[in-house]
Amino acid sequence: MTGHVSLVGAGPGDPGLLTRLAIVRLRRADLVLYDALVDDRVLRYARKAQKFFVGKRAGRHALSQSSIETLMIKAARRGRRVVRLKGGDPFVFGRGGEEALALQRAGIPYEIVPGVTSAVAAPAAAGIPVTHRGVASGFVVVAGHDEAAFESAVEPLVPNGLTIVVLMGLARSTALAGRLIDRGWSRGTPAAVIVDAWTSDQQVWRGTLDQLAAEALDLDRSGAGTIVVGEVVRLGTVSARPELVEGRAAGSWFDRLTTSESSERTTCLS
Amino acid sequence: MTGHVSLVGAGPGDPGLLTRLAIVRLRRADLVLYDALVDDRVLRYARKAQKFFVGKRAGRHALSQSSIETLMIKAARRGRRVVRLKGGDPFVFGRGGEEALALQRAGIPYEIVPGVTSAVAAPAAAGIPVTHRGVASGFVVVAGHDEAAFESAVEPLVPNGLTIVVLMGLARSTALAGRLIDRGWSRGTPAAVIVDAWTSDQQVWRGTLDQLAAEALDLDRSGAGTIVVGEVVRLGTVSARPELVEGRAAGSWFDRLTTSESSERTTCLS
Repeated sequence: MTGHVSLVGAGPGDPGLLTRLAIVRLRRADLVLYDALVDDRVLRYARKAQKFFVGKRAGRHALSQSSIETLMIKAARRGRRVVRLKGGDPFVFGRGGEEALALQRAGIPYEIVPGVTSAVAAPAAAGIPVTHRGVASGFVVVAGHDEAAFESAVEPLVPNGLTIVVLMGLARSTALAGRLIDRGWSRGTPAAVIVDAWTSDQQVWRGTLDQLAAEALDLDRSGAGTIVVGEVVRLGTVSARPELVEGRAAGSWFDRLTTSESSERTTCLS
Repeated sequence: MTGHVSLVGAGPGDPGLLTRLAIVRLRRADLVLYDALVDDRVLRYARKAQKFFVGKRAGRHALSQSSIETLMIKAARRGRRVVRLKGGDPFVFGRGGEEALALQRAGIPYEIVPGVTSAVAAPAAAGIPVTHRGVASGFVVVAGHDEAAFESAVEPLVPNGLTIVVLMGLARSTALAGRLIDRGWSRGTPAAVIVDAWTSDQQVWRGTLDQLAAEALDLDRSGAGTIVVGEVVRLGTVSARPELVEGRAAGSWFDRLTTSESSERTTCLS
């Protein structure tokens, strides 16, 4: 009997932003292949699965793309329920499309379980809406880790029109901001950088494109970072993260979710 | 004691794509104000809440934007836990930013609970990745229901570069496709329309921009629809929806999730 593969989005990190279906798939999984951006607390849902890290650390891939695909296919042929777990959404960068095609060619049943993408959720964690009536009537999502890909993504954009969200661009933020200015973006365009969104380590930098191009950001660059460029950045003056709203700047979100899970369990005992 | 407001994304419709935190907020809510795109099965999580429809039906708003904001603020001042429930993500169109600003001005504690956006999840339901190495290095999300807003969103785009995702554009699909062709998009650009993504009523149309501009689509236009334009549409040859993967073209996803919830309850009794 053939198994199957679920390409699952883990969201921006916090287990509270996992979908119901992602949790169901993790609980039933025999094998989980996960990327660098996936939080340990998310992996704990996969209680009975073997878990392998197949992502990129310190600039090196633990496993090549074709090895990951071969591993998934072999495991599914042995009847195993495989979860391929990616940060954010599986079809927003991260080669989800390539893996889907490889599975299709191999005749392996597979599914996509969409996740909350950091492209929208990371700005939201700093209170920044990617669209806003009268300010931005659309947004563009590009990746910043590869120079050529970034170039081909911003080339079809006329400057100063839409909100730009750059994923995986933290290490190259100075160059990326400079490139936008060179292409005609106003130096004073508001910009923000959100690092480790939706974690207790979240850091937010706010300034202008000019400053982003000039400054060495005082942020821990080891974390996952999202850059937002556009007038919408001005709107995000408060942090809208739940723990701040409830007056608990310290203490993680997950702790509260765990409490709530416990109380649900109590309910179900009665 | 002041209550608070959660601006919650309900995802594309299926309760399986709700986040863990959205469910926690719904279960604890005293008042839920929901939009047209929110599924009834999602509302059932809000067992103890009063629920009011405040969206748009048959082209008319049940309540004006300022009335919705006043309602939220008044309820929170009376100590109630309010959930403002929106289809998809609260900060991708849908005026989440405006509501956040209104709450901020009124001094009401609030939070954003990001959701799975249809901009990514609806194409995924037809197997279409919005980005793909060598095919699309980024994507643009715009809204199609308002002519002026659509125009200002596509104006800063050089034709044929990035994947375009149009939300809320089903009723105007012919005009929107024509507008892209007028602006220089190739007539043969692959295009797809996904209606009622992630529901058992899902319908997918595939063709070219030319055909989209010319054809009266044979789709039920009462549902929520997402239009995708770009070469990535060619990649989506199979449906990657879970119920199809598991050989159950009929029967809803939610049924299976319910089963799994029951087994979790059994576990917690032991």
